Amino acid sequence: MKKFNPLKYAALYEEERKKIDKLLASSLKKRKPKTLYEPASYILQSSGKRLRPLLVLLSAKAAGGKFKDVYNAAVAVEIMHNFTLVHDDIMDNADLRRGNQTLHKKYDLNTAILAGDSLLSIAYEYLLKDCNGNTKAAVSAFTQGLIEVCEGQSMDTDFETRDNVQLKEYILMITKKTAAMAKMCCELGAILVDGKKSDIKSLSDYGLNLGIAFQIQDDLLDIIGEIDKFGKTVGGDLIAGKKTFLFIKAFEKAEGQDKIDLQKMMDNKGIRPEEVQHYKNIFEKLGVLEDAKNEIRKYTNRALSSIDMISRKSETGIFHWLADSLIKRNR
Amino acid sequence: MKKFNPLKYAALYEEERKKIDKLLASSLKKRKPKTLYEPASYILQSSGKRLRPLLVLLSAKAAGGKFKDVYNAAVAVEIMHNFTLVHDDIMDNADLRRGNQTLHKKYDLNTAILAGDSLLSIAYEYLLKDCNGNTKAAVSAFTQGLIEVCEGQSMDTDFETRDNVQLKEYILMITKKTAAMAKMCCELGAILVDGKKSDIKSLSDYGLNLGIAFQIQDDLLDIIGEIDKFGKTVGGDLIAGKKTFLFIKAFEKAEGQDKIDLQKMMDNKGIRPEEVQHYKNIFEKLGVLEDAKNEIRKYTNRALSSIDMISRKSETGIFHWLADSLIKRNR
Repeated sequence: MKKFNPLKYAALYEEERKKIDKLLASSLKKRKPKTLYEPASYILQSSGKRLRPLLVLLSAKAAGGKFKDVYNAAVAVEIMHNFTLVHDDIMDNADLRRGNQTLHKKYDLNTAILAGDSLLSIAYEYLLKDCNGNTKAAVSAFTQGLIEVCEGQSMDTDFETRDNVQLKEYILMITKKTAAMAKMCCELGAILVDGKKSDIKSLSDYGLNLGIAFQIQDDLLDIIGEIDKFGKTVGGDLIAGKKTFLFIKAFEKAEGQDKIDLQKMMDNKGIRPEEVQHYKNIFEKLGVLEDAKNEIRKYTNRALSSIDMISRKSETGIFHWLADSLIKRNR
Repeated sequence: MKKFNPLKYAALYEEERKKIDKLLASSLKKRKPKTLYEPASYILQSSGKRLRPLLVLLSAKAAGGKFKDVYNAAVAVEIMHNFTLVHDDIMDNADLRRGNQTLHKKYDLNTAILAGDSLLSIAYEYLLKDCNGNTKAAVSAFTQGLIEVCEGQSMDTDFETRDNVQLKEYILMITKKTAAMAKMCCELGAILVDGKKSDIKSLSDYGLNLGIAFQIQDDLLDIIGEIDKFGKTVGGDLIAGKKTFLFIKAFEKAEGQDKIDLQKMMDNKGIRPEEVQHYKNIFEKLGVLEDAKNEIRKYTNRALSSIDMISRKSETGIFHWLADSLIKRNR
């Protein structure tokens, strides 16, 4: 892996994250009616990694532009991401998001549906502010990302009631639900600064593969991660009966009693908290934690090979650092 | 009012309506996953006036282009309109739409939320197909229409729990919820064929004023309209406790027992079906049916004055016909 100065990159990320937070906080100010924009701004104010905006900024710079060319687009992708969170939380009937009440719990269902819709409309408005020249390609990439997120969410929902989800389908689902958005962010940044075709492709492939690695990592952290400050439960995916990478891989490999136990999790649409350790043992015995790590490594390496293809080699360091920190994260 | 051949125009409308129906029916074909696109196509298949696409087509022609330049954009506005219907039906807890089960009743809440989101994403995809050159202005108009629809829906919801809605606020609400979309359709058609600025403005003003007239007409038809083949109840708005033009105007004018009765409708969030005639009598006594007709005439005349300003005078006939038929419609 390339050498880089992690402290410098971490500081830059932190600085940009704060800028994005500020831009997000002011994005809905002065808009009326308040009955719409107060709930919508509630979700934007809750803290987040702001990874997607960062990808837009870094990609714009890597493709020959400047951060300042794409701040509005960076805000746009984060707003779009928050739109998906609001509607997903309704669909998942989730009470909490980042330690705060979800929008539909704090307000009500109708308010949350409409606030989500409205966020999406504002996302497009923000995107357009940074469009000069390549508008069609930029809006098209943005829209394609949106289309895929919806398709991925639908597949994810469909998996809930299916017992025969294959690993290939799972990878397609997370590609659409998570990775397509990361891909779009990288693509968008590069398109908006009129980047070279080959650079747009390299950045886009970086985002796609990073996104897949990120999601499998997410699945893994559910089992091996630290309990975070919001008290997110270890094994939450198992308790909720989610068909994660680990689960699908385990079900593929399991025999005898293990297979029966895994089937039971599907039949009951989840397990009890006190059963988490038992299922963790099954995962360990079957080696699926290692399988996940290998898969994460595979997609991360693909991401890094892609980024190393860009013409401005001096820009690759932070992309390596980012991939590295995402893999090393523990929550 | 201008002379025109209504039969010719009606035939043209019918022909284009069928084309739009066909394009809509094929718009989601071959897309996967089916769990997403089957529900989404369900709403597109139900019949509708397809007024919005017609406005796109007519405006493109009036601004110097051809229908064939904007069929995708015409499909886009209808898909966006259907997105609003799906989410509005959830918010209104409506069981039926155009005589068919609403999407969330036929499927479920989550499917309907996501199908709506997905329709919006596809709407942008369709719009982009017709964007060549004026992409930024076109996407911006489209997005602005979307923003306003969300704002209008929020105001409408807000009115449900307020006793002091003023006529001015009501007009702003329908301007956003209904008229902004009609305005956008006219604007969009003209922008996409690179129409003159002054023509874009005239067409846009036509759409806006027609939209306002259309919505007040809708309120009026609830009281004086024929029962349609789906058995839509006369006085449905009163039964549902809606603050329509008629109601707000009546409340403004009423005194004594009438005022008490109107207040009662608000307190009880509606009336019983057998009370409709009593409230209709109040409306008649206070002259608010006439007020509504005058208001419809005012906005229609504004629409017609606007359309008469376009440079291609030979194109104005069908816009007159359209306004005329909307005012004469009885359901």
